[in-house]
Amino acid sequence: MNPLISPAEATKHITDSLVTTETEVVNLNDALNRVLAQDIVADRDSPPFDRVMMDGICINTYNHILGSWRYKIIGTQAAGEKKMLLPKGEFTIEVMTGAPLPTDANCVIPVEQIDIVDGYALPHDGIDADDYQFIHRQGSDCKQGEIILEKGTVLTANELAILASLGATEIKVSRLPKIQLLTTGDEVIAPEETPTDYQIRRSHPSAIRGLIDANKLGEISDQHLTDDPEAIESAIATALESNDVLILTGGISMGKFDWVAPLLKKLLGEPAFHGVSQRPGKPFAFWKPTETSPVVFALPGNPVSVMATMHRYVLPALKQMLGQPLKTQKVSLAEDFQWNTPLTGILAYRLQDGKALICPPSNSGNHLALKGSQGFAQISPSSLHKADSLVEIF
Amino acid sequence: MNPLISPAEATKHITDSLVTTETEVVNLNDALNRVLAQDIVADRDSPPFDRVMMDGICINTYNHILGSWRYKIIGTQAAGEKKMLLPKGEFTIEVMTGAPLPTDANCVIPVEQIDIVDGYALPHDGIDADDYQFIHRQGSDCKQGEIILEKGTVLTANELAILASLGATEIKVSRLPKIQLLTTGDEVIAPEETPTDYQIRRSHPSAIRGLIDANKLGEISDQHLTDDPEAIESAIATALESNDVLILTGGISMGKFDWVAPLLKKLLGEPAFHGVSQRPGKPFAFWKPTETSPVVFALPGNPVSVMATMHRYVLPALKQMLGQPLKTQKVSLAEDFQWNTPLTGILAYRLQDGKALICPPSNSGNHLALKGSQGFAQISPSSLHKADSLVEIF
Repeated sequence: MNPLISPAEATKHITDSLVTTETEVVNLNDALNRVLAQDIVADRDSPPFDRVMMDGICINTYNHILGSWRYKIIGTQAAGEKKMLLPKGEFTIEVMTGAPLPTDANCVIPVEQIDIVDGYALPHDGIDADDYQFIHRQGSDCKQGEIILEKGTVLTANELAILASLGATEIKVSRLPKIQLLTTGDEVIAPEETPTDYQIRRSHPSAIRGLIDANKLGEISDQHLTDDPEAIESAIATALESNDVLILTGGISMGKFDWVAPLLKKLLGEPAFHGVSQRPGKPFAFWKPTETSPVVFALPGNPVSVMATMHRYVLPALKQMLGQPLKTQKVSLAEDFQWNTPLTGILAYRLQDGKALICPPSNSGNHLALKGSQGFAQISPSSLHKADSLVEIF
Repeated sequence: MNPLISPAEATKHITDSLVTTETEVVNLNDALNRVLAQDIVADRDSPPFDRVMMDGICINTYNHILGSWRYKIIGTQAAGEKKMLLPKGEFTIEVMTGAPLPTDANCVIPVEQIDIVDGYALPHDGIDADDYQFIHRQGSDCKQGEIILEKGTVLTANELAILASLGATEIKVSRLPKIQLLTTGDEVIAPEETPTDYQIRRSHPSAIRGLIDANKLGEISDQHLTDDPEAIESAIATALESNDVLILTGGISMGKFDWVAPLLKKLLGEPAFHGVSQRPGKPFAFWKPTETSPVVFALPGNPVSVMATMHRYVLPALKQMLGQPLKTQKVSLAEDFQWNTPLTGILAYRLQDGKALICPPSNSGNHLALKGSQGFAQISPSSLHKADSLVEIF
């Protein structure tokens, strides 16, 4: 390993080297969690007409005579029907929520505030009849031509509804990066196999696939490799050819059978960095993408280290490749936290009333301790972090 | 509408009436965000053997002589290979991370702390050689037979990794509720159609589908109905037959063409409640499930009201049907918030350093204002909420 760099330096190497993926067009129905690759502009005002907000009647306040209201009902303006005309004088039109306000009306009186007798509407004494009450004015939410959703926006339910209301049913989004995961380690077998006394079951593909699928950050394939340098070299060489991202787990420390780092160096040259002053995840190595090779994240093999480096580096990198704006997320600590290690802690947390309760596992092999945690917080080396102080979360 | 009840009373009506769906078995690869319908028990200790945590050598501290260490290397214990035996005396075995600790060894010295000369390992002066250092003891994370994941757990990436490591590849989960969404309103057309001056495009299906799919809370179909009572009655009658949940939007206020509430009353009898003292979403109505009919949520038609009632009532109800334990989530307010309405506010918020910034839209028709919001907070009627006070979020 090279000399250790800080997590901030590691982040800078990564963010400086990434480019956004190309775009593709998807249908609105398939757009959940995708990232917009275009600005979305209002094709008309919103609302597109003066919209009635309450069931009731409409009047023009110009006509109203205090204390002696009585309006002849001349029709009903339903939602989804052409706008009617309110004649001058003491006339009214019944109006329904969602309907366009009839021409020359400027006030809605709710049905709860009137009586209807013999075809006449009689507003109750003392009620309000203000100009434009209960009317959602045309263009008051946005004007035609305004940018409503910006490039880089992640499309959650709120944004999908907005796209639908703007008629944006075919949407340009960032193409999902193609990700190849290569796991290594002779001691790990497939989860459905029966382990011997000295074997454990493979959990990295489930963990990493879960993170990527939950956030729709890429299309991932995975393959497991035994600790055989020829097989590893050939699998890496193949994976370098046709992916946007290569993630490897294990084989990057100083063991006799740690082939991953040496073989990556053989195929790609020296990494941007190998070794970060953090716990867990110290042996983490990174190769920048080139004209002919994808970005390569080589993660340590322990399961907690995998999750820590995925949250801290890989997920933000994938978001950047998808065109999401980089932003720092912080929360307060729920209680004092003493960290005695002279390396930055990348530690799991649980949210408790919006504050982070740090819950470091006993060691980086104990991924059972990650159950119910929501992400990882970055904790400065050798220091006491007071309750309510802010920490960065990933 | 009946007299208004409080949001807490509405919640009680809903939670008291729901039952958990049946179970089904899914493969681990399809289990993301599903809810466990069984406890998951460790089939063996974790780790299943004394696991080496650093590349290095192993010794038995019983043999060590202060200041004059020198151990003959008699072999290499690789990960994934049968456990070797460390002979008594000044012998050592090279050990790799993830390997089983050789029998009769009780200490690992990392490779960084030794020199290897002529087949002998020479630990550096002054290093530690404590019993069981760098050894992840068998059963220290959990013992065989312990419950590791409880029924009701939502399976995120962390839990998928745990299932994989326990060999739980076929898992009993709660069946997803079958949900039918019926939207109404003559003014709304499909997003891909061209609206006239008095029409708007349909956004509820995109919004509701987005919420349900993002959280994997059900399998939803949707259908739009015009404001024609015969068509609505027939569609409701059909939907009542073969779903676990029926969600309707619109048609439950006091308009002349508000057919949904009267027709539901005709088909199902009086609702558990109709009208909640909240803004938005006041006309919200709810029918309990019976032997022959599903649970029915009739939501107001305004888009902000739809999102508020979905977050506040429908999503928690679906989680309950899936067997998730009910739990209250709170966060602090980012700043003072004055709410002058004598109804409980169900208001969108954005998270800012883990605190909620309330961002109420100008009116319940303006769903553009929901862009980038993360959920809804419940705000007590007519009161000033101080910064840093806790509010319940949904």
